Parts: sequence; C-alpha cells; structure tokens
Amino acid sequence: VNLDVEECWRRLEAGGHGVLATVHATRGVDAVPVVYAVTEGRIVVPIDTVKPKATTQLQLLENLRLDPRCVLVVEHYAEDWSQLWWVRVHGAGFERALTPELTGALADRHPPYAAEGALASAIEITPDLVTGWSAASA
Amino acid sequence: VNLDVEECWRRLEAGGHGVLATVHATRGVDAVPVVYAVTEGRIVVPIDTVKPKATTQLQLLENLRLDPRCVLVVEHYAEDWSQLWWVRVHGAGFERALTPELTGALADRHPPYAAEGALASAIEITPDLVTGWSAASA
Repeated sequence: VNLDVEECWRRLEAGGHGVLATVHATRGVDAVPVVYAVTEGRIVVPIDTVKPKATTQLQLLENLRLDPRCVLVVEHYAEDWSQLWWVRVHGAGFERALTPELTGALADRHPPYAAEGALASAIEITPDLVTGWSAASA
Repeated sequence: VNLDVEECWRRLEAGGHGVLATVHATRGVDAVPVVYAVTEGRIVVPIDTVKPKATTQLQLLENLRLDPRCVLVVEHYAEDWSQLWWVRVHGAGFERALTPELTGALADRHPPYAAEGALASAIEITPDLVTGWSAASA
C-alpha cells in the first residue's frame, strides 16, 4: 500500500539513516549511505570531521554543488517480505554552515554529534516530493 | 578502512538487498530499494509480477532505457557505528529476458522467485567500479 505523507514523515522521523543519491557529473548518478535528522520539514545530513568518510563526503558535496537534486531512500528490509517498507524524499540539497537548529537536530538524533567539533557542516534537503510504500497496511 | 575488491564481492554475494540509483530524465536522479542476486560477476535485479511494485519497477526500467548508468549501494547499518560497512557498485543496467542462469540465481537467493510466474524479466548490471568501506577492519 502507498503510505500517506503524514505516515511517511512519521517513519522518516523515527528513522535516522538511509541512502542519498545525487547527480554525478560523469558517472550520471552517485549514492552513499548517510545518517540524517529531521527538523521543521527538512532533512539534515551531517558533514562530519571523521577522516575515513572524507572522500565520500567531499564527492557528495561536489555533486550537490553542481546539481542540488537528490533523493533519500529510507527503508526497512526483512527476509519476511510482508514487513518491507520504504520512504523516499526527492528534494534539493545544499551545504549549510552549522546553526544551533541544525546541530541540535543532529545531536538529538545521533549522540556522537553532540561532541564538540564532531560536525564540520551539514547538508539541508528541502523536500519537494515525499512518497512511501509498505507491504503491510500502515 | 577501504575494502578490497574481493572482500566487496564476498559481501555482495552474502547480501541480497540494497538501494539502486538511476538517472531520471527530469528529476535528475531516482532511487529505489531492490533485492538482487550475484551471478558470474554481474548483479541481477528481478522485475517481478507482484502488483504493488509495478509503478516503481516501470519507472526503474524507463530510467535505465534512457540512461543505463546506475549505482547499487549495499549497506550494513547499526547504531554502533563501529559496525558500519557498505559496498557500492557502479555499472550499466539493461533489462533482459529471463534465462535459466538469471532465474536460477534469483530463485537460489530469494526463494519466492522459485515460484512459477513470479518473475517477469530481470535487470542485469555489469559493474565497472566496485568499492567498499568498513568502520572495522575486514
């Protein structure tokens, strides 16, 4: 069944990780796992200061600078397919300097980001289409 | 740590679901959860005959017909971030008529596809770049 938009937002808020796909200048498309938080109808993805992710994060930022269009997929998978569901957010993503709102939303959802200096900046995604599907009734 | 290509394939073969991102003619990028199987160095994604997925699957096929470039992300998420890993496959995807090899690979990995008439066709992805990352040593 298709999920209505309120149910999609409930599941987005209860979630916290997904896959973010972006336009890539030469490869056509790119995608990377991300964590996120929801604040005031927007999706916030951290750009953190942890080194191992640096290359992936730099590519993500470059992709969004060239074309802000992106899509976030948040899904629940189970070998029992009657439990499957997913929510998808199409929108435009831009890198933002940290603000108390963005930092607070990320730190509330993901405690490691409450540490001083854990965040470098954030990507703010303004949704223009939110859809979802569930194998079971909502 | 970056995973070497052999370890990436081990994790792809042990997996079976992920998010497939494609180029979308007007939205720039699209992405959808998929199940898959691995056979002979290629990724096989089922196009099934289950109705609820029909719209999503038709869009995926249309996207690939317009531009075969795609990326599959297979990830393991955990609240304990030291357990995170992901594998990413960039490649070209084309719809294929069913063959014993494709049907067999899908049915072996996902028992529901062993049922008569469960598969309509399949997408075959030929990888051109396989990369992976793990928070822990492999």
